[in-house]
Parts: sequence; structure tokens; C-alpha cells
Amino acid sequence: MLTVALPKGALLKESIRLFQAIGLDFSGFLDPANRQLQIVAPTGNAQALLVRTQDVPVYVEYGQAQLGIVGYDVLREKNPQVAHLLDLQFGRCRLSVAVKQASPYRCSLDLPPHSRVASKFVHCARAYFEQMDLPVEVVPLYGSVELGPLTGMSEAIVDLVSTGRTLKENGLVELEVLFESTARLIAHPLSYRLNRFGLHQPIEQIQALLSSPVP
Amino acid sequence: MLTVALPKGALLKESIRLFQAIGLDFSGFLDPANRQLQIVAPTGNAQALLVRTQDVPVYVEYGQAQLGIVGYDVLREKNPQVAHLLDLQFGRCRLSVAVKQASPYRCSLDLPPHSRVASKFVHCARAYFEQMDLPVEVVPLYGSVELGPLTGMSEAIVDLVSTGRTLKENGLVELEVLFESTARLIAHPLSYRLNRFGLHQPIEQIQALLSSPVP
Repeated sequence: MLTVALPKGALLKESIRLFQAIGLDFSGFLDPANRQLQIVAPTGNAQALLVRTQDVPVYVEYGQAQLGIVGYDVLREKNPQVAHLLDLQFGRCRLSVAVKQASPYRCSLDLPPHSRVASKFVHCARAYFEQMDLPVEVVPLYGSVELGPLTGMSEAIVDLVSTGRTLKENGLVELEVLFESTARLIAHPLSYRLNRFGLHQPIEQIQALLSSPVP
Repeated sequence: MLTVALPKGALLKESIRLFQAIGLDFSGFLDPANRQLQIVAPTGNAQALLVRTQDVPVYVEYGQAQLGIVGYDVLREKNPQVAHLLDLQFGRCRLSVAVKQASPYRCSLDLPPHSRVASKFVHCARAYFEQMDLPVEVVPLYGSVELGPLTGMSEAIVDLVSTGRTLKENGLVELEVLFESTARLIAHPLSYRLNRFGLHQPIEQIQALLSSPVP
């Protein structure tokens, strides 16, 4: 049976709406009482796994799911061996460098060499500063990265920004954007080549949806 | 000012109770309406940071917090440069190997060589299987590790078990325990040696609490 890996969190609602639009209903995951992590569509021809957004590429890489939806940010950070098929246009945000509003820095290159930069996106942050030849120490954090500059642990952060509300509430200001991110459709490369479980069909349906004008 | 890093999640309530018992009130973090990640005790002589449990040792390592509470599991997995002071006796759980109930494996060594083992505790899992000279592939996951065996992605998992309810609900059975974990009090090593902000006093008070008989 075709298996789809769906990301918990910010991308879930739109992901479910997308599959509903092509006849695959996984809306059971939106029921607050739901505890199941694996549900079969009522049509019986596909199932979905509900996993952490960082785990979506893992399930797809190992072929346990043939399709998955994940943020471009996760693809950039983890660089998984998956086929990157479509930009789904939702879940728009950006990975940005930010500092305290009160700091004298107005662009990334203003940061003093060997500054500390707190981030959940360790690889992206490292690659970015390396490419501008600015040596920094990346401090890996799992959450609430904005605490880094507030406590004085780091001069800057590299973090996802969507509305900018969290930055503002914490007196931080965005300096530069590393890249923009949106939700992406990914596939297990071998399954995609072999059209396993007829997976080309839902992919083409999603593609058609994306290219048709919004009603 | 003395700064304490407190872990979000399962250990928070008991951690706050512990500091309350020695006169430092950080119970503001338990207010569901609270959005602050940094609060000062009403006595004005200490503040607390509310961070992810994996981030507690980071703040303590960098000296942004002089004290922290964190699970022994995190200390084993991340091996941070912190002074490990006291076993606080709460938050008891164990890191265990588990497999599907229907599988033929009854101990870790039954697993076929090159099995896949899903885990959030990548280093602990690797060290455990290396020490028994059993080559396995550790699949790093961020959440819902129990989906590994259910979807067939992995033969086994290495995950935290407290009541065993999650395992049971997912038809998994515990094979072996890697180690037991409880909450630990950690300190920034240099701050501890220098008794910065008089941090020996709260440590001694906590030690006294632990060794006094429960009323």
C-alpha cells in the first residue's frame, strides 16, 4: 500500500488538505483525541504516518514511506537521500541570522570573528559562515534559540522566521536571510523510478493542483 | 545573579518543587499562561531559564547557568563538560532495547547482525551494541521511535521507558535495560570551584533535603 509520511506541527493541516484534494483522506490526524500515528485512508488504497518533521526524510529514505512532505529547511539541514519533487508553496518561512536590537551589528559580516551563534540548524549555520570566511562557534540548541542572545550565551542566532513575532517579542532583529523555505513533496528514489504502488498518479494529481489557478 | 537552567517537560514540576523547598520560587513557569523563558525568584537573588532538557547542559557548559537539572540519559548521550553533583532521585526511567512482541528475539544478542535500531539516543545505542560486538545500523529519529518496528523500518528500538505504557500500546516488549536514569543536579565546573554567586549554599541545602527522611 502507498505510504505517505506527514509532518507533525506547522505543516500538518495544509499537508492533509493537499492529500484530501486528491482523494486521500488522512484528516483523522487532526482529531485532538487521536493517538494513532498510522492511519489508512477510508478508500483503503493508502496509509499515512504521522512523524516529526525531521523524521519525514528518514522514513522516505528507508522506503518505509514512498512519499513525504517536509520543509525545505529540513532538507537543507539533513541533506537526505530522497527525490525532491515539488515545491508545495505553503509553510513559507526563512532561515535568518538575528541579533539583539541593541547590538551594533547590521549585517552578518559585522559579527566579530569567533562569535557564538546559537542554532538548531547547525550544518546550515556552519556552511553559511564558512562560505563568507567568517569563523564562528555554532552552539547547537534544540529549542528556544532566542534565549541565546538574551542570556549572553551567543552574539547571534540562525533560526526560522515566519511572522517575525518571536524575534520582536525578544528584542531581536533579523540581519540576513540564508534561504527561504516552503513545504516540499519528496519521494523514495527507487520507488519513484519503479512507480511503486502507482505513486506517479498522486504526484501528477498534486502537480496539476499546483499549476491550476486558485479558485 | 545565580542562574539555574530548568528542563521543560517531565522533570519540570519536581525541579520547581525542589528549588521551592530551598526558598527559590520559580513556580511562574507552571502557569499555563506563562510565555517567559527567564524569570527571577521573588526573593531577587536567583533567576531561572526554562529550556529543552537537551539544552540544559549547554547553558551550564557555557556558564550561562551555574546550576541545572537534567536527566542522566541526556548526560550519557551528550557527555557534556559539566560537574555532575547529585542524584535527585526523581524522574526515574530506563533506557531499554525493545522489539515487537511477535518477534523471535528475547535478548539483545538475539538480534541478527546488521539489524536496524531506531533511537533518539544514537550514541548510547551505538556504544551499547559495540560493547557487545554486535554490528547494527542505528537509525536516528527525533520522536515516536515506536513507529520504527511497527512500520518495519527497524528490528528494534532503544528508547526511554518509564511506565511501559507506550511500548504496550504499540505491541512492543522490553528486552534489556542499558541503564537507569533519574534527574541530576549539574553545575558549571569553574563556577562550582570558585563558589560563584555563593552557589555552594543551594547545593548544600539540596543535599540536606535529599538525605533527610521524607516526612
